[in-house]
Amino acid sequence: MSGEVNIKRLAQELNISIATVSKALNDSHEISLKTKKRVWDLAKALNYTPNPAASNLRSNKTKTIAVIVPFIANNFFALAIKGIEEIARKFSHHVLIYQTHEDIEMEMSFTNSLLNGRVDGILTSVSSSEYNGTYYKNLVKKIPLVFFDRVYKDLDAYNVTTDDYEISYEATTHLIECGCSKIAYLYGLENLPAGNARFLGYKDAMQKNGLTVSDELVINYCEDESQNLTQITQLIDRHGPDALFSSIEEFVIPTYTACRALKLKIPDEIKIISFSNQATAQLLDPSLTTITQPAFEIGREAATCLFKMLNKKGFGDDQDIVLKSTLVKRGSTGC
Amino acid sequence: MSGEVNIKRLAQELNISIATVSKALNDSHEISLKTKKRVWDLAKALNYTPNPAASNLRSNKTKTIAVIVPFIANNFFALAIKGIEEIARKFSHHVLIYQTHEDIEMEMSFTNSLLNGRVDGILTSVSSSEYNGTYYKNLVKKIPLVFFDRVYKDLDAYNVTTDDYEISYEATTHLIECGCSKIAYLYGLENLPAGNARFLGYKDAMQKNGLTVSDELVINYCEDESQNLTQITQLIDRHGPDALFSSIEEFVIPTYTACRALKLKIPDEIKIISFSNQATAQLLDPSLTTITQPAFEIGREAATCLFKMLNKKGFGDDQDIVLKSTLVKRGSTGC
Repeated sequence: MSGEVNIKRLAQELNISIATVSKALNDSHEISLKTKKRVWDLAKALNYTPNPAASNLRSNKTKTIAVIVPFIANNFFALAIKGIEEIARKFSHHVLIYQTHEDIEMEMSFTNSLLNGRVDGILTSVSSSEYNGTYYKNLVKKIPLVFFDRVYKDLDAYNVTTDDYEISYEATTHLIECGCSKIAYLYGLENLPAGNARFLGYKDAMQKNGLTVSDELVINYCEDESQNLTQITQLIDRHGPDALFSSIEEFVIPTYTACRALKLKIPDEIKIISFSNQATAQLLDPSLTTITQPAFEIGREAATCLFKMLNKKGFGDDQDIVLKSTLVKRGSTGC
Repeated sequence: MSGEVNIKRLAQELNISIATVSKALNDSHEISLKTKKRVWDLAKALNYTPNPAASNLRSNKTKTIAVIVPFIANNFFALAIKGIEEIARKFSHHVLIYQTHEDIEMEMSFTNSLLNGRVDGILTSVSSSEYNGTYYKNLVKKIPLVFFDRVYKDLDAYNVTTDDYEISYEATTHLIECGCSKIAYLYGLENLPAGNARFLGYKDAMQKNGLTVSDELVINYCEDESQNLTQITQLIDRHGPDALFSSIEEFVIPTYTACRALKLKIPDEIKIISFSNQATAQLLDPSLTTITQPAFEIGREAATCLFKMLNKKGFGDDQDIVLKSTLVKRGSTGC
């Protein structure tokens, strides 16, 4: 036999299947050591050179990637993970999920436990409790890693995010066009670029329209859920806003609950908008106007990025992928 | 020095901290090999015997457990995982999450990947797509494993479940007491004991009250979501039931959507009950009467079971823990 030495040729010479040769070259546990040795010896003897893509794939030994998120009960993250899994399945990788509950110690401890070859790469959406840039600055040198949604902008890393500023600006403008002028802001993710961009979009839209952004109309998210209900109730009670702009999904239930308790009619007496990927948004009473992030697509994009890194395909220069969110107008703004 | 040889004494003799001795005895990666050797040598020389609990804990080298569920976007599983994490945190273990999307191949492939010392134990809620008892019969011999919610009853394993039969019977009786006689059943998990028990509870309550259980009033869950909407719409259209009993949360959105499209008033023209742990159930239009499973507690119980196994504490004879669900009456049954 002569000509190109490829997997097919190795299979023919050894009288075994192409799949077996491929698995043997990938050092798969499914193949006996004896068979592997036969394949490796012949490959060496015939001076077999794997094509670059196959060779790079071979280095991904765990066939597993990890995705680290603050919460899985959040609809955005549940959908993003679904997107990640779709891509991982294409590359025959399992997806480990880990939730940090916004706890930076847990996040670092778990991430560190992954460094010893436990997974091929990591997709992460960082905790909002504090800024942890130094840790990640070192980490991105140690393992293929892609940030999605909650990112650190100043690192040499790939980030997949959404147009937080633009969509917040658009949503605030919608409230103003519906006649609102005293728009309260429920602030989440204040330690992260995403949170800051959302707030800035709101602020700029207010100022552009000659409206005041007052500190007393802004509250910050508390981990203690009952505290959020109390805060929102007090805000409405004391300052009588005509709209609530909720920058994270977690504010939706306390917001509706507060309005009910205060017997405020939505949208007649108060209008509500929230960032949310809740499938039940349309079934709420009244249906909720949402800023819907392309969560599934973010997961897909982030995973695609990671597999490009793993397979050493390169990306070009742009490390920032920004996807567009959608303002879905429903009953809670009602105009 | 004389007296009992414990970790404190080892630490004093070596002039290092108790934490360092403990980590060295646990073969922690945080401790240098040199220090470990000093600790091990002295422990041997002084005939140090660890106390049994510490010794058993020591064998859990990964400090990680895995939880395998069909879906994380389901509120029941999200809450159960939260309960699991609470217990795992007590024992300083990380929790890996894996979702199978009801795919038995994925479930087995991932579970197999855990057998080589990747985790100390597994908590699992099996796929409903087909019966896979033989696989698990072998698996429970290989690794500490606890089933929760979706279990196989005939294995020698620990199961944490809820009173599916009793609560379905109670919910069906509630509908009958509200005046319903033509109650359709939206059947989920039909390959699993939980699904069968829910259906049987409905059936028995119907028959006890002299009502007919007719095949045409029963539909089965489809993975294709749009198909569920079509099925429910056709069921209502053709057979005009006065109530819908949804045995899984996934039917809620298509059920409400179908009633809206058909302009049927809930609860006046049709009443709805669903198994669900949705926090938004009370905010739906109308608010949804739910069978609420103690999801968080199931997670806690299952994890407690697993750590008893890992720490070889034993359980007594009873391998079946059954927790009680609650019928929460709201607007969608309205009586």
